[in-house]
Amino acid sequence: MSIAAEPAARRRSREGGRRRDGEGPRGIAQLPWQQPRRAFPPMKLVCDDQLETMHEASLVLLEEIGMDVVLPEARDIYARAGAVVEGERVRIGRDIVAAAIGLAPAEFTFHARNPAHSIRIGGDWIAFSPVGGPPNCSDLDHGRRPGTLADNQNFIRLSQFFNCIHTSGGGSTDALDIHARVRHLHIGRAKIRLSDKVLYTSSTGRERLFDGIEMARIARGITMEQMMAEPSVFTVVNTNSPLKLDGPMAMGIIEMARLGQITCVTPFTLAGAMAPVTVAGALVEQNAEALAGLVLNQLSKPGAPFIYGGFTSNVDMKSGAPAFGTPEYMKAAIIGGQMARRYNLPYRTSNTCAANAVDAQAAYESVFSLWGAIMGGGNLIIHAAGWMEGGLVGSFEKFVLDIDLLQMIEKFLEPLDTSADALGLDAMREVGPGGHFFGCAHTMVRYSDAFYAPLISDWRNFQQWQAAGSPEAWHKANGLWKAALAEYQEPTIDAAIAEELDGFIARRIAEGGQPTDF
Amino acid sequence: MSIAAEPAARRRSREGGRRRDGEGPRGIAQLPWQQPRRAFPPMKLVCDDQLETMHEASLVLLEEIGMDVVLPEARDIYARAGAVVEGERVRIGRDIVAAAIGLAPAEFTFHARNPAHSIRIGGDWIAFSPVGGPPNCSDLDHGRRPGTLADNQNFIRLSQFFNCIHTSGGGSTDALDIHARVRHLHIGRAKIRLSDKVLYTSSTGRERLFDGIEMARIARGITMEQMMAEPSVFTVVNTNSPLKLDGPMAMGIIEMARLGQITCVTPFTLAGAMAPVTVAGALVEQNAEALAGLVLNQLSKPGAPFIYGGFTSNVDMKSGAPAFGTPEYMKAAIIGGQMARRYNLPYRTSNTCAANAVDAQAAYESVFSLWGAIMGGGNLIIHAAGWMEGGLVGSFEKFVLDIDLLQMIEKFLEPLDTSADALGLDAMREVGPGGHFFGCAHTMVRYSDAFYAPLISDWRNFQQWQAAGSPEAWHKANGLWKAALAEYQEPTIDAAIAEELDGFIARRIAEGGQPTDF
Repeated sequence: MSIAAEPAARRRSREGGRRRDGEGPRGIAQLPWQQPRRAFPPMKLVCDDQLETMHEASLVLLEEIGMDVVLPEARDIYARAGAVVEGERVRIGRDIVAAAIGLAPAEFTFHARNPAHSIRIGGDWIAFSPVGGPPNCSDLDHGRRPGTLADNQNFIRLSQFFNCIHTSGGGSTDALDIHARVRHLHIGRAKIRLSDKVLYTSSTGRERLFDGIEMARIARGITMEQMMAEPSVFTVVNTNSPLKLDGPMAMGIIEMARLGQITCVTPFTLAGAMAPVTVAGALVEQNAEALAGLVLNQLSKPGAPFIYGGFTSNVDMKSGAPAFGTPEYMKAAIIGGQMARRYNLPYRTSNTCAANAVDAQAAYESVFSLWGAIMGGGNLIIHAAGWMEGGLVGSFEKFVLDIDLLQMIEKFLEPLDTSADALGLDAMREVGPGGHFFGCAHTMVRYSDAFYAPLISDWRNFQQWQAAGSPEAWHKANGLWKAALAEYQEPTIDAAIAEELDGFIARRIAEGGQPTDF
Repeated sequence: MSIAAEPAARRRSREGGRRRDGEGPRGIAQLPWQQPRRAFPPMKLVCDDQLETMHEASLVLLEEIGMDVVLPEARDIYARAGAVVEGERVRIGRDIVAAAIGLAPAEFTFHARNPAHSIRIGGDWIAFSPVGGPPNCSDLDHGRRPGTLADNQNFIRLSQFFNCIHTSGGGSTDALDIHARVRHLHIGRAKIRLSDKVLYTSSTGRERLFDGIEMARIARGITMEQMMAEPSVFTVVNTNSPLKLDGPMAMGIIEMARLGQITCVTPFTLAGAMAPVTVAGALVEQNAEALAGLVLNQLSKPGAPFIYGGFTSNVDMKSGAPAFGTPEYMKAAIIGGQMARRYNLPYRTSNTCAANAVDAQAAYESVFSLWGAIMGGGNLIIHAAGWMEGGLVGSFEKFVLDIDLLQMIEKFLEPLDTSADALGLDAMREVGPGGHFFGCAHTMVRYSDAFYAPLISDWRNFQQWQAAGSPEAWHKANGLWKAALAEYQEPTIDAAIAEELDGFIARRIAEGGQPTDF
């Protein structure tokens, strides 16, 4: 609750200090806010026949084995649609699945409190959401530690500061210094006050979910009626793989749909552990669980915005440890996209790694993940910045290293200019054989922004680099996130909205927030 | 010349010690020898119309500006085909280019002295060639230093040892302790004795080139007549961009063709320096220079095996330093592949980075490069392992880190098994909702090789990893290359061939090798 109590800091950041619009002294030269689009068709790793075989196997799973659904209300919804319910087991016939496909929008607008930061989900649009959920955070100065609200707020500030991040985050590190009953209220307030980008809400509890939705409504200053027509908050529901949907998850799928908000169902199908030891088998299970979620969601409100989530990876069969950014992960990410498009749904995938250090492993696992995500047609790429140790840590250095990777991908996605001027024949006429292009007219008008200027990469020659202390990427990242926090400016908010938000949060804290048994 | 003088070491490696076939104690568990194939269509970043626009601009360049060609013999060859020659300038009409297209094979076999290590070049085949050409080498134990023959030999051993490397290398680090006159003879001997994979020869001098071809012939134990029908050695010719072909390069293009050996012409088109500051312009220049090389090559011998080389990247416009693995590099790698396929030619690309350390930057620049190379349909991927600092250093740690990346790509390229058994419905029936797959029958028959087991990645949890001394990938790579050298076995060679090779080399050393002016 410290943010509004820092007027001096806010005044400084608004009225002076570094500016980002080129008026004042040059700060971090990041890319402008934009939402990248994929200008090429997504990659196919299986042919259409194979995809149909996997789709068909998912249907067999759902109708023959079925899902265990813990929430009675969810079982009732499935039953009313014709599913066979025995105890917790729900067997879902293929006709029920077929009826649910095609209702959800293939593409929709996700509304931010700042309309300039609203984004499109689906189609060829790509959105990057930062790391969500780790209990721990780390940085080079203070090491690995349980996350606090202060850390969480710094991740929100970084998510707001960097233009290539399109959401305010899903809890980049948990705020373990705040009791779980009211933690979501403190984090929700921080997201709305420190950022004006689109919002996430946790669905791990009915009060948490409804508080998150209400905070999003207040932030936008709209009625619930308008909000129901304008998706303004998203949640991620992980199934309890294999084939189980627990109470809070089913509740989230149902209530988000009823209120017209965005549900992303992401089965947690680690091949060899919670899913078959084959990528194909794990994808069949993923697909069955995602379809079960889609059915429940669309039965709750036909046409509710729904995102098909893929998170299939494998475990190390020697230790059981989860692995990320592997060849198996890449395949699953790409084929997951094929399945999502089979159902005309937006696709969620991730930027993952299992590394303990921000070293070469962290980078290659991340870029392999992004290769799968981008070529696979990912629309919402979660954990896009800062995710480490398979999700156990949100790292400040990894966050800004990922920012550099995401910006490179944004530049990679820009279609090539092949206009006559870009082809440069006149430049080649001017320079001729054996010359150089450093000073020619074609270069002079373009050189300042001809190429992506990385934030981390060190292109000095070895001697200069050594003279500078041989900084590795990890060290350079340490300086960058601190510079970004120094340069960060808190977005403005309408005073009435701020007051309503504070009032709501104070009341909900007084009421006890989300009941817990501890 | 120390290799044959080490019979004890060879006896040990042949008769005992560690084995690689699973009979003896387990060594480095690498993937088996195989040549990966691309099972999906290569990516297109420009549409066919844009590609034609760039092709057309290249033709305009060649006929209007032309190339400076230093070698009189080469100018004569162009002139006889109808090119307009004025001084060194050669203007090549589009009809001459058109006549050269379609003569070279789209796919061919590249013969190794061990037939089991012969490879296919072109089509959907992929071959990885290790780092070539740096004057320096480095490792964590001894730092960065000028390369020696001993270092060069260790890179050859690593290239032989690791199955995912398909050539004996192009001089992974230069052997600066050997005089340039005879260096190629020492390196050539090392490659043939320490490896039985396909060979590279330098074309930076007539004697060097012919010595390399003759050593390849001797190694295979065949006649020159047979060799002319069976490509057994390749060279890379870098044009002197922009639009200049120096003497040795033109000689190499001509003589390799006449002898039926493989020429890869790779323009060195760094956008903003030796090429226009736009990616499109740099690619037009690359394409013009590659086509000029193709014309000279095919005029010298129609149907000679030719590889279209792409190396377009950009420079840092602030410092002029070359940059690699950038978004611009990725685009150029992918569109370069589109151009090569436009001419039905095999495509050469690279695994590059500009990093000074084997850190996150080295890894992300490399994986971005490989993303471009693989999605762009690269057939021969040079500098695939060990290339650092934009080519100034061959790094032992980077070499084995890249081995892990290449193996991951080999696994990624394996088509997905979607057989009924792989779909795992029976496993899901056995396990059911809420269970786990660790012990089920489907897992038990597959677990040992279900997933790629990385050589470097550390998937231990943070506490175990910390207890082990928090090793970063760079440190783990240091242990791996030394373990690989310890496990390496020298391939057998026919005694008569070894004798002939030694005799040839002794004679050529006595004759003075390649004349130099120092």
